[in-house]
This record gives sequence, structure tokens and C-alpha cells, in this order.
Amino acid sequence: MLETAICKMLGIKYPIIQGGMAWVSEHNLTAAVSNAGGLGIIAAGNLPGEDLVHEIRETYKLTDKPFGVNIVPIAGVKFTDHLKIIADEGVRIVSLAFSDPKMSVISELHKHRITVICVVPSVRLARRVENEGADIIVAMGTEAGGHVGKIATLPLVPQIVDAVSVPVVAAGGIGDGRGLLAALCLGASGIQMGTRFMVSKESIMHSDTKARILEATEEDTIVTGMVTGSPMRSLSNEFTRHWQTREKEQGQRAKEELQREGLGRGYRVIIEGDMEQGTLPMGQGCGLVREEKSVRDIIDDIISEAETMYKRIGTMKT
Amino acid sequence: MLETAICKMLGIKYPIIQGGMAWVSEHNLTAAVSNAGGLGIIAAGNLPGEDLVHEIRETYKLTDKPFGVNIVPIAGVKFTDHLKIIADEGVRIVSLAFSDPKMSVISELHKHRITVICVVPSVRLARRVENEGADIIVAMGTEAGGHVGKIATLPLVPQIVDAVSVPVVAAGGIGDGRGLLAALCLGASGIQMGTRFMVSKESIMHSDTKARILEATEEDTIVTGMVTGSPMRSLSNEFTRHWQTREKEQGQRAKEELQREGLGRGYRVIIEGDMEQGTLPMGQGCGLVREEKSVRDIIDDIISEAETMYKRIGTMKT
Repeated sequence: MLETAICKMLGIKYPIIQGGMAWVSEHNLTAAVSNAGGLGIIAAGNLPGEDLVHEIRETYKLTDKPFGVNIVPIAGVKFTDHLKIIADEGVRIVSLAFSDPKMSVISELHKHRITVICVVPSVRLARRVENEGADIIVAMGTEAGGHVGKIATLPLVPQIVDAVSVPVVAAGGIGDGRGLLAALCLGASGIQMGTRFMVSKESIMHSDTKARILEATEEDTIVTGMVTGSPMRSLSNEFTRHWQTREKEQGQRAKEELQREGLGRGYRVIIEGDMEQGTLPMGQGCGLVREEKSVRDIIDDIISEAETMYKRIGTMKT
Repeated sequence: MLETAICKMLGIKYPIIQGGMAWVSEHNLTAAVSNAGGLGIIAAGNLPGEDLVHEIRETYKLTDKPFGVNIVPIAGVKFTDHLKIIADEGVRIVSLAFSDPKMSVISELHKHRITVICVVPSVRLARRVENEGADIIVAMGTEAGGHVGKIATLPLVPQIVDAVSVPVVAAGGIGDGRGLLAALCLGASGIQMGTRFMVSKESIMHSDTKARILEATEEDTIVTGMVTGSPMRSLSNEFTRHWQTREKEQGQRAKEELQREGLGRGYRVIIEGDMEQGTLPMGQGCGLVREEKSVRDIIDDIISEAETMYKRIGTMKT
């Protein structure tokens, strides 16, 4: 059993956090991860208030373990709404991938004694959120699925570890116990995974989409959205290749049209199983996902793989 | 002391390979790395035959340890020239970042009983060079300096380890003992480093250029060369930003002009110290390079850092 600083802070058994993923990170997955000893997270994203209340209450029905909510505090009104719901419903952990210092998001959350996890793509942003009070920093590499920066996990994690004094969690490209152990070697106190949990028995993702991830190679992702200002890594398919071509050919001129075209594409592939016209956020660790397992098996296997690998390295020492 | 499969194969003490870097990887650096227990490598690249002979003979004067030569077997005639020199001079190890199956490069090298190290950016190419007979495969992530692929080191290494049966070495984003240990956890048998060795006392790089790397952050690199077909990660400066802008605006139309403009830019910054008009290959691990040290100190520190971190993780186990 690997116990790190974040285990005590978050009240979890294993230093494994499930990333907040639109549509997939709902109450079933969240509760399954928390019940298996990790930290499940509900993706609030654009959820209307009543839906977020529903997701939180359903999660409470399924687990008595700690879980978190991932919010996107860009629209001021929605942040206030979501904050009130989270506080009223007694959620103790919030993760955010965006923090506007002008909005005092972190200090507002701290007023409600909520532990704040900030996801950052660079040393510069890690320093900023630490100054704003972040309790835990997730260093997310460019190989992750979803919205990404430009720095890869392996060089990013130790550079952030050296720059801040709060615990750091590694995210991006991690799918098994080797990745967990590597993250700890880099100085991280745990890992966050998204793609691996998408293909779990408890995930509500469409079975065709799960099957597509199971056969994906590390070359099957593509980054789009440079022109819209929020680059995203997802499955390379008809729609995302079309998007990338348009960006290359037309640059900023295609921005508004692409933003319109992009609406609703996540639901289309994640829930409806449309593999060519939907946008499926997916990281380069997809090639490590070769079997649909229960969340408990995913986590138990990661811990035992990490322990086995640790011992194996011990035998290299002469 | 960490001994892995590649130590015996290459006759080295530590599983640390120095990457083949134009201008920097000459006899002084090569010999220093081999003398310190790693594998030094001379970058043959575009070297005229007589210069390669000179570099190999100077290296022999400075070390009796094994070292390698990195070749670029694209131009058929030059490969034949280089191969003859390497064989005649008794070099036992060759690394290559490009292998054309039609040229039978690997089997030609094997005829001279040379151990062949192939650098690859994807699982697909790893499988191909293994089929062609590669003895060791370097999995190079997109965060590395110089010519790069798209997959990051952390997800790339375990996926290649699972796909091939020869030893795998991790490259890209590694600059210290944490990176070495993380690579071993991912299943690698060692690491290859470039950027870290550029800023060593034995490196002939211009002192201004070394100073620039020492103050670089992980955000200071840029990838150019998409249109020329060989993307390269280097220092973000006036010239490389100009190149990137031209690529974005003109695409393929700018290809020939950019290729002409790019000539001689490495020498300009690496040897002459022109920080804005030269092209300095540099990886995202640059932020881990904070001190100019001797090669021996770099390697000794990496080994002791890895050992310290290994023990520290042991104490996490309860």
C-alpha cells in the first residue's frame, strides 16, 4: 500500500484521482472510484444547478467515501451557483482547471473549508495557483486527453515539484502501475487518470466508444482548438481531422464557425457512440487500456503493478 | 549502482546514454561521458569522412571505454562512407534515428558485429526496427530537443516496452535522477539525455548559449519544421518564431525557402553563441538544468538522486 501526503489530505486510501470528464464523470463512476479507495470526481462543467444537485445526491447514495466536484469557474454567475450547491450539499473537495485571480475562486472555496485541487499545464501557473492558496496541484501534461497545454508530464512534474511546496499530482499519459510508480519517482504524491477510467464497467460511455479506445494506439489522438484558444486532445476521426485542416488553412478566420460546429460533439460520441462525428477527449495513454475492467480491479491492479515494479527495480541494485 | 540489461550489452557501468547532438557531441563530450560510466556518442550527421575519422581517433586518445557513433543513413553514399569508417576504426556501437528498410542499414551494421541502437518516436516504428534487427530501442518522446515525434515519453515508453522484446531506453524530458528512476519504473532499461549534457564543463558549446539554457523554463521551446517534414524542438527565439509564423501563414509554400534559411543555424548558436538567429535544439527538461557541472558530476548525481528517491518511495509503503 502506497500512502502519500494527498491520502491523508483527501481522506483516501490510494493516491489515485479520477479526472473530471464531461458526461463520463457522473455519479456512477465517481462513487465507484471513491469506493475503490481513490478520489472520484463529478464533472460539473456546464451542468445546470439542478443536475449538479442530482449528481451529488446520487453519489452520496452510492458511497460514504470522500469525492470531489470539478468546476469551470469562467462564467461568474455559474461559479456562484455551483459554489453554493457544493457548499450546501457538503462536498469537501473541489478541483478546477481554470483559476482567474480576479474572481478569488480559491479563497471563496476556502471560506467553506473546501480542499482545492488546481490542474495546471506549466510551472508559471503552478506558482500562481499556489500563491492563490491551492491545496494540491495537478501537473497535467500535453499527452492527457481533453484540454491540454504544451509541456509533457515527465519534464513538467519534477519542475513543478521544485517550484511549489504543496503536494503535486501527475496527470497525462498514465494508465497503469508503472505510471503511478514513475510519477512518485518524479516527486509527485499521486496520479490523476481520465482515459483509463472511461473504459471501466461502471463508466456510462457507449460500448462502441469503449471498444474504439480498447483498440486505439498512442498515435490515434489529435490536438485541435489552437484557434479557439483552448487546445484539446481527442480521438483522431473525421470531425477532428476536418477541424484541424480548417484551422491550418484558415486560422483565426475559422474560429467562430468551428466553435459553433463543435457544440454537442462530446455527447454524440461518449453517450451516443458516433465515432466519426463526435469529439472524444482521449490521452496518449490510450494504448495502455486493453481491457474493460471494474474500477476496483483497475485500481487494485495499478497498486499491485506498482509494488511489483518497485521490487523489481530493487533487484537491479547490485 | 543500477545495473540493467543495456549495461552488459554496451559494456558500460551506468544505464545512461548521451544523445547524438550536432556540433556538441564531438570527442570531448563523448569521451567524458564514457569515462564517467555512461555511453558517449559522436554525432556523425553531415560530417565529412575525414572529420569523422578525426573525431573517432581523438575519442580513442581520451578514453578506453566503449563509445558510439550516431549516423543519419538517409543519403546512401554517405551511409556507405560512414559505415566503412566506423568498421575500419573499430567502433562497436552505432545509433540511428532513421532506418530505411530498403537500405538494410541494420543488417549491414550487423555484418561488422556492431551493436545497433535505434531511436524511434512511436510503437509502430519500434516494431519495425525490431523486425529489422535493432539491438536496443530508444523511445524518444516529443518533449526531447532536436527532431521529434508527437508522442510524449511517459506514455510512449511502456507502450513500446509492451510491444517489443529488446531493451528499451527512455529519452525526452529527463534531466536528473528522478527521471532515470521514473524511466526504469516505466520498464525502460536506461535513459538517453541530450540537453543536460549540453551544459557540462566538457561541452564545447558557447558559454552564452550554456547560460541561456541555465535560465530557460520548460515553456521556452518551440516546434518548427512541420512543413519540411522533420519537426524539430528548439529554443524559442527570433528565428524559430519567425519560422513558425511563416509555416502557419504559408504552409507548404514556404518549405524550400525555410529549408534554405535554416542552413547553418545550429553552428551559429551552439558554437558562435548567436541566441536570436541560431537554432538551438533543446528539450522541455531544460528547466531541470540549473548548474554547469562536469560530466562525471552530472552522472554521479543522477545515480545518487535515483538511489535516494528509491529509498524514499520505500518509506511510503506502510
